[in-house]
Amino acid sequence: MTIKHALSTSRAADFAGWYQEVIAAADMAEESGVRGCMVIRPWGYGIWERIQRLMDDRIKAAGVDNCYFPLFIPLSYFAKEAEHVDGFAKEMAVVTHHRLIADGKGGLMPDPEARLEEPLIVRPTSETVIGAAMARWVQSWRDLPLMVNQWANVVRWEMRTRMFLRTSEFLWQEGHTAHATRDDAMDETLRALEMYREFAEAVLAMPVVAGEKPEHERFPGATATYSIEAMMQDGKALQAGTSHYLGTSFAEAAGIRYQTSEGGHALAHTTSWGTSTRMVGGVIMTHGDDDGLRVPPAIAPHQIVIIPMLREDEGDAAILDYCRSLAAELGAQGALGERIRVHLDKRPGKSGPKRWEWLKKGAPIVVEIGGRDVAAGKLAAITRTRLYREDGKLDTDFPEREAFVASAGAALEGIQAQLFAEAKARLDANIRRDLGDWDSIAAYFTGTDVPGWVEIGWSRPTGAALDAVVERVKALKLTMRNVPLGSSAPDGLCPLTGEPAVERILIGRAY
Amino acid sequence: MTIKHALSTSRAADFAGWYQEVIAAADMAEESGVRGCMVIRPWGYGIWERIQRLMDDRIKAAGVDNCYFPLFIPLSYFAKEAEHVDGFAKEMAVVTHHRLIADGKGGLMPDPEARLEEPLIVRPTSETVIGAAMARWVQSWRDLPLMVNQWANVVRWEMRTRMFLRTSEFLWQEGHTAHATRDDAMDETLRALEMYREFAEAVLAMPVVAGEKPEHERFPGATATYSIEAMMQDGKALQAGTSHYLGTSFAEAAGIRYQTSEGGHALAHTTSWGTSTRMVGGVIMTHGDDDGLRVPPAIAPHQIVIIPMLREDEGDAAILDYCRSLAAELGAQGALGERIRVHLDKRPGKSGPKRWEWLKKGAPIVVEIGGRDVAAGKLAAITRTRLYREDGKLDTDFPEREAFVASAGAALEGIQAQLFAEAKARLDANIRRDLGDWDSIAAYFTGTDVPGWVEIGWSRPTGAALDAVVERVKALKLTMRNVPLGSSAPDGLCPLTGEPAVERILIGRAY
Repeated sequence: MTIKHALSTSRAADFAGWYQEVIAAADMAEESGVRGCMVIRPWGYGIWERIQRLMDDRIKAAGVDNCYFPLFIPLSYFAKEAEHVDGFAKEMAVVTHHRLIADGKGGLMPDPEARLEEPLIVRPTSETVIGAAMARWVQSWRDLPLMVNQWANVVRWEMRTRMFLRTSEFLWQEGHTAHATRDDAMDETLRALEMYREFAEAVLAMPVVAGEKPEHERFPGATATYSIEAMMQDGKALQAGTSHYLGTSFAEAAGIRYQTSEGGHALAHTTSWGTSTRMVGGVIMTHGDDDGLRVPPAIAPHQIVIIPMLREDEGDAAILDYCRSLAAELGAQGALGERIRVHLDKRPGKSGPKRWEWLKKGAPIVVEIGGRDVAAGKLAAITRTRLYREDGKLDTDFPEREAFVASAGAALEGIQAQLFAEAKARLDANIRRDLGDWDSIAAYFTGTDVPGWVEIGWSRPTGAALDAVVERVKALKLTMRNVPLGSSAPDGLCPLTGEPAVERILIGRAY
Repeated sequence: MTIKHALSTSRAADFAGWYQEVIAAADMAEESGVRGCMVIRPWGYGIWERIQRLMDDRIKAAGVDNCYFPLFIPLSYFAKEAEHVDGFAKEMAVVTHHRLIADGKGGLMPDPEARLEEPLIVRPTSETVIGAAMARWVQSWRDLPLMVNQWANVVRWEMRTRMFLRTSEFLWQEGHTAHATRDDAMDETLRALEMYREFAEAVLAMPVVAGEKPEHERFPGATATYSIEAMMQDGKALQAGTSHYLGTSFAEAAGIRYQTSEGGHALAHTTSWGTSTRMVGGVIMTHGDDDGLRVPPAIAPHQIVIIPMLREDEGDAAILDYCRSLAAELGAQGALGERIRVHLDKRPGKSGPKRWEWLKKGAPIVVEIGGRDVAAGKLAAITRTRLYREDGKLDTDFPEREAFVASAGAALEGIQAQLFAEAKARLDANIRRDLGDWDSIAAYFTGTDVPGWVEIGWSRPTGAALDAVVERVKALKLTMRNVPLGSSAPDGLCPLTGEPAVERILIGRAY
């Protein structure tokens, strides 16, 4: 039975094209006319708002305070950083003027009289200004730990952009903390990592591997960088959150010193950790199918959408009444620890196109109500994760209204669990651990099947040996993802160096 | 009895200096090192987060969808606007380059090779890009009304800045809606105005006058502009929110046209409305006193702060246990429709300085717990709005724990009501309606007492007559605030023009 899916591009035929089509079909975002910047539409932004709120709850529960730091950073702040940090990225938006004037040709131009003495940089991260603030705020051991977080827009000029995954402007949170000791800072680094892992799995229904990045993939200046890595449906890895232990190097650059309880002076140990709108891209590539997006109920702006089948006659009032009271009853039910979010779609128009609009957007449950449903005390319900019957027709249920209301919370929780289970099974099935030599690894990644990741035992080379290994991996367009936390020490030799393996590491293609 | 207040500057002695001292003493914000941009610290940002969440609830309840539009707007978008709109402000941050390079002198400079073909403007408002998006999204009458809102940072280059009140970068929400008819758009304009009035009064405990701005104070290009005006403790007006009916002029400029249900084509009628971090400045100048800030409980990040009086001995564990269980009991109580927000301040340090830190921050209720309280099942509580007894000493209550917990919700609601009632009495007492000629109005505003506002009947002049009136008012550093909604038509002559008065208008000094 061939199903005619709602999208014209399938994941199998063209994953990148499918990704763009989902974003358009689900009304999530669109190009803005400014290179690399997108307009995030209500459905896409609603998903981000849910992510933001649930992540913010976790950040606050950890005792971290939200702050806001300026959009602009003086150029001189970066000069210092560029000096100290290898791999410092210089692709930034530079503000040079503060006024426009008429250009004499009917247009406008920057006013030459209003040139800034010192150019301002649109923040690519707030590391430097937050460091400067911490240096002011931390005086004594009593001021530690100092834990702040910022939700903000940041800009990194990107030549090749992709909506949600890599945009010049993006939205993110950046946590920055200062601690008295290495142990406290490392505990915080790993707490943030675990917060991200739990969030990805419980909220985004996106299974991840949490682990430490190898040396050459560390955040510039960090002592240790950790990440969560998710596997997209094309087998590629998406780094969906990072957490860094920065040692005392940032404290030294920013002057974050404190008086110890014994009266001496010491540098603070700092951390930083972040996640961004990139997670929305991860949700699309983890849960989307050939009919559009499937949104995990925990982050669905509307969990149940009710569509009245109106005929523009005198029967409409009764249908709308029925829909309103059904919406109220559902909204009084709970799912995933919150009230169920119900949307009644009262816009004019036929129910068929509206049904498909919501299915492409990935609303978890779509309900349609016609005159006969009102008369019978029933409704028609489609579950987004169980769209078709075996015969290829839409799998519509016709439950009694009361039964539907009573089971709605459990149904949504079931959808959340099912999305996670599907993705978890895919992740687990697509990490190869049986490839012990480089030839078979290379064959796996150059074969015709869609590859996932390979986990090998490796010898953790450094210096020139590491450079050689990175080159070899890069030649196959692969990258080292991370060293999974808590994985057992391997036996045997590293297929990349021939030296005894000391830890396991994941290798794959990545976004 | 002379009270020694916590701040060194009183409102009476130097209101502007007092304002800055409150912001510093309450740890709300500080200068960032970038002209006109501030760092918003946790207590200030926590208040903003409360404002944002409670306003956002109201915006969503009105059926408005949140979106996100790009930070950067191409220069050419403004060229069009500058042509059409008188009073177009040109003080904007202009991005001209997208990369830094070493300047050969150990520093960095904008890379001449990375000059943008078209400069980008950091959004001063998103009017133009949202208009362009609406033109894409609105095709048919079925797409109307289209109602979107954005929470974002915007930048307007300001020469003279003041924290929260006028900063180069500020945080705000901007609502933009498109409608089929003038009546629908006007209803929405007034709905937003009423939402702001209700929000200011119920949430910020800040009484306001909602009304229409006179012609010369309209948003450039608007058909009608409405505002809410609050009276600060120095008698000046603070415009705390605006709502504009834009007619079809913005739709025409942006091309927002739709097919009518009859098959013809028409321009949409649009509105816009906004509030910003300026409201935080309004809260300070409405409720602050000579001991610091007083935060209305509805927007207090912590409504009750518990300070354990620790002695670094074996009794501390029992005190902390008592505090924790008290915090849990209070947190299970409700106030103002939410759970009570309790903070247990476990930082090391003496309780005296911590008590004053929280009182200066304006936490509504501050509780201290010592060993004797634990033994007696009591506590010591200070209510921020009733700080001193008649003899000038701190007015500390020593209630039984159970009684305190049981009455905490009502106490917080009482504080909220009291703050509003105080401010309302001040507003009502300081609008003069008895000054019928310009000489007595001028005398009032040049006298030695702190003046409030004057309400006069005016003739609503236009053209040159209006210009003359505006000059005359401006000479006394006064501005026309608004024409209060629903005020009765006045008798007599306008003291500014000598013509018959047709409506009432408020005049005052303003921020």
